[in-house]
Amino acid sequence: MQLSAIYKPVQEDLVRVDKELESVSKVDFSGLAKLLDHSLKSGGKGIRPALTLLSGKLYHYNLDTLLPMAAAVELLHVATLIHDDAIDKSPVRRGRPTVYKVWGEDKAVLLGDYLFAKAGELTATTRNLRAIKLFAQTLRTISAGELSQIFSAFSLEQAYQQYIYRISCKTAALFVLATESGAVLSKAPAASVKVLSEYGYNLGIAFQIVDDILDFIGTEEEVGKPIGSDLAQGTLTLPSMLLLERYPEDNPVKRLFENRDRREEIKLAIEQVRNSSIIEECYATTTDYCVKACRNLNQLPDKASRQSLMDIASYIIQRKR
Amino acid sequence: MQLSAIYKPVQEDLVRVDKELESVSKVDFSGLAKLLDHSLKSGGKGIRPALTLLSGKLYHYNLDTLLPMAAAVELLHVATLIHDDAIDKSPVRRGRPTVYKVWGEDKAVLLGDYLFAKAGELTATTRNLRAIKLFAQTLRTISAGELSQIFSAFSLEQAYQQYIYRISCKTAALFVLATESGAVLSKAPAASVKVLSEYGYNLGIAFQIVDDILDFIGTEEEVGKPIGSDLAQGTLTLPSMLLLERYPEDNPVKRLFENRDRREEIKLAIEQVRNSSIIEECYATTTDYCVKACRNLNQLPDKASRQSLMDIASYIIQRKR
Repeated sequence: MQLSAIYKPVQEDLVRVDKELESVSKVDFSGLAKLLDHSLKSGGKGIRPALTLLSGKLYHYNLDTLLPMAAAVELLHVATLIHDDAIDKSPVRRGRPTVYKVWGEDKAVLLGDYLFAKAGELTATTRNLRAIKLFAQTLRTISAGELSQIFSAFSLEQAYQQYIYRISCKTAALFVLATESGAVLSKAPAASVKVLSEYGYNLGIAFQIVDDILDFIGTEEEVGKPIGSDLAQGTLTLPSMLLLERYPEDNPVKRLFENRDRREEIKLAIEQVRNSSIIEECYATTTDYCVKACRNLNQLPDKASRQSLMDIASYIIQRKR
Repeated sequence: MQLSAIYKPVQEDLVRVDKELESVSKVDFSGLAKLLDHSLKSGGKGIRPALTLLSGKLYHYNLDTLLPMAAAVELLHVATLIHDDAIDKSPVRRGRPTVYKVWGEDKAVLLGDYLFAKAGELTATTRNLRAIKLFAQTLRTISAGELSQIFSAFSLEQAYQQYIYRISCKTAALFVLATESGAVLSKAPAASVKVLSEYGYNLGIAFQIVDDILDFIGTEEEVGKPIGSDLAQGTLTLPSMLLLERYPEDNPVKRLFENRDRREEIKLAIEQVRNSSIIEECYATTTDYCVKACRNLNQLPDKASRQSLMDIASYIIQRKR
């Protein structure tokens, strides 16, 4: 199923979110305008703002608050990517040069800060204290998660639970912000807020595991950046953790982490993962999380947007980029 | 006059702000705890949180909101310094190694993000939408101001008005946040909010001009970082702008900006500024702003904290660090 079909219940309003994002680039200061323009035309899938609108559509759908919130969720996402790219010195994302690559680390850091602020301002326009608080908590969780990832780089001593914790911070938290804010702003009853928050959490975990799988089995063209980049940065993800578990003695990941700079080992690790059943196992975990994500959605109103939330879970497993 | 004497009307509560800041470092994740501990024991002057409490003390002094706000203002300040140091690759601040120097650029960026978020969360606990909005706007203004500084680095074509604009973004905005949030949270009447906001603006401009003066006439020990660092980063400030104006033909700043890497020219520029009446002229401008800052304070209630706000303006001119 295509995303455009899944987004149908909110398609027109997603266009309005895009317009809201475009208007963010309209600033007098031309240097900044260029940076904003480059970052906001990044051609993402728009899953996060769609989640906010789809969640909101289940209850009192008020675009006065849902539109700025959806835009804030996307801006927060873009801002964290800009900082990540600066930190990882990544030259390419989604097939395009990063802000870091074109304008350097200093401007990337400040642009990210600017976008955090802009996202915060948009969130404040909802005048909803719960959404505002959740927004700030989410930024804190994401930063703590990224720090935890950096602190554990090139460490072989990482358990599955730590991996889930890390990706819950760096990815699932933002999905929770997307769905929970949509629920809160549309005045969903407390039980439904919980269902949508849990949906966001589990979907986010599944989404990140697929990302981590694609870093092994995707093509550079599909993924929009070099394959194996997690290993290159010393980040263990589910496929590489399973590889270490299966071949504890002699393992390219182990050799790589011990020597830290051997492109050859990355290639070998990718090959070994591809030639094993590890990918199947990773997809099984993803499926588990997608099932968990959807298990309580039947408690929500039977509307088209509820079906879309289910379809997003299926889409996530199949996605190639 | 000593700062401790000036702060007297809120001295006990500033201790509580410090405790609030200390509690920010208490996190389970030990890597992060170390970074937080290092950053929050930085021995700053605490002017910004003092301004929030002193402003609040003029009206309905409610510590439930003023304490987290004062802490948020200080955290926002610390976070921007951490990012600035990473961007400028500054090894020392206030006589201590920077987060950038000890832990590297990546952790400095993420720690700054974490602190922005924490500051946002504290602001949200005030449940005051105006303070929340002002907080987000301030972060955006600061980032835009820093970007503008970077975009104009090593450019000799900068007018006085641009300089004032830049420092209003990078410094005065945070002073405005400090005083205006104090006023708003203590339910000051609209006219008083305006007076305190203007006070914050003018005081912030004066404060930054003194900072820029000290980068020429201070000692490394007093200032806590190498003298001439603005010039080394290609940043024109009031003293160097006046130097260019006085000696338009042959000028060490001009030679420095054209060649970009001559420590000798920085030394010459510092000497030339020190041996001229430029510093006097800069202090005259500072005094103007301090006078402007205080001119309407007499419209506020005649309380000890109002006198403290006046005394801070005098302190700012005399300060050596």
